[in-house]
Amino acid sequence: MNFLEERITKDGIVKEGNVLKVDSFLNHQMDIQLFDEIGEEFKRRFANEHINKILTIEASGIGIACMVARHFDVPVVFAKKSKSINIEGEMYVAEVESFTHKCKNQVIVSKKFLSPDDHVLIIDDFLANGCALQGLISIVNEAGATVEGIGIVIEKGFQSGGRIIRNLGYHLESLAIVDSMDAATGTITFRHE
Amino acid sequence: MNFLEERITKDGIVKEGNVLKVDSFLNHQMDIQLFDEIGEEFKRRFANEHINKILTIEASGIGIACMVARHFDVPVVFAKKSKSINIEGEMYVAEVESFTHKCKNQVIVSKKFLSPDDHVLIIDDFLANGCALQGLISIVNEAGATVEGIGIVIEKGFQSGGRIIRNLGYHLESLAIVDSMDAATGTITFRHE
Repeated sequence: MNFLEERITKDGIVKEGNVLKVDSFLNHQMDIQLFDEIGEEFKRRFANEHINKILTIEASGIGIACMVARHFDVPVVFAKKSKSINIEGEMYVAEVESFTHKCKNQVIVSKKFLSPDDHVLIIDDFLANGCALQGLISIVNEAGATVEGIGIVIEKGFQSGGRIIRNLGYHLESLAIVDSMDAATGTITFRHE
Repeated sequence: MNFLEERITKDGIVKEGNVLKVDSFLNHQMDIQLFDEIGEEFKRRFANEHINKILTIEASGIGIACMVARHFDVPVVFAKKSKSINIEGEMYVAEVESFTHKCKNQVIVSKKFLSPDDHVLIIDDFLANGCALQGLISIVNEAGATVEGIGIVIEKGFQSGGRIIRNLGYHLESLAIVDSMDAATGTITFRHE
């Protein structure tokens, strides 16, 4: 097990309905030393990519993206969730369905901050059905920028998001891929290629 | 001028209605090197406080709080905005009015992550009327924890939030206090005690 799988095993809580709660260290309380290790590991896995910008999505992606960005020495842009476009100026827009909240949101990025010159690493905390990630990829493509890689902290391997993104040819690295969970026993099984 | 005032003067844009746009480096695109300097400066200003946790609020506070937390070597908890309570378990709740979006939100923090043992530094990007900050203070007090300090990146000195918080006796440090702005000329005047 790598450092993240160990932490998930120790502090993650499995709930009914394939819910994995990691709010004590990842997406409500945030362990900054762990985030720094995550940044170091993504830097290792994307060492051969030419990356000049990190793109993430509010809210829980932001902290991780910032700590990852330190290791790449690049700025972070975060996509904003918006029911309606209310930020002045021109925006890239994507529709994103939320699994947790069962609603559709618009995700927006100002055109000022993504251009054809950008080589983008997309960072997010979770990948399940991949709706948020597809929205971010769509925004990068709309900008004429290049997706150089996608770094995910925890992938739910039993949902289709990761498979679809890999089939599309993207360089996707998930630091932990959960293949199955059992709420009764609390067991989490990770994928190891 | 300090490093932040210089950056605001260089890249901030003054709009009608006392709006200061800093989205190219602070709250949409994020300059991670600048955030690191901000963290170093807060560490200097709160060197005498015993701090074991940083509290912020989604979304734009999160990146700054994480970079600040590196300098204190403590975890970050971010308060979530929620129209309705939908996170399981017990929550601290505060009502917060949004100046930008002209609506009321509930702000929530899980009771698991704040306790009477906690000595909290509150971090946020902007302080204007202080509604969000009052909500965070209320949550810390509800938890029986202690507010050791409040670190704000940009305070709008012509609004009442900062004055009220200082009158209440809190140790509030704002890295830049804007006393006035002129949209016609683009001039920004900072307060220097």
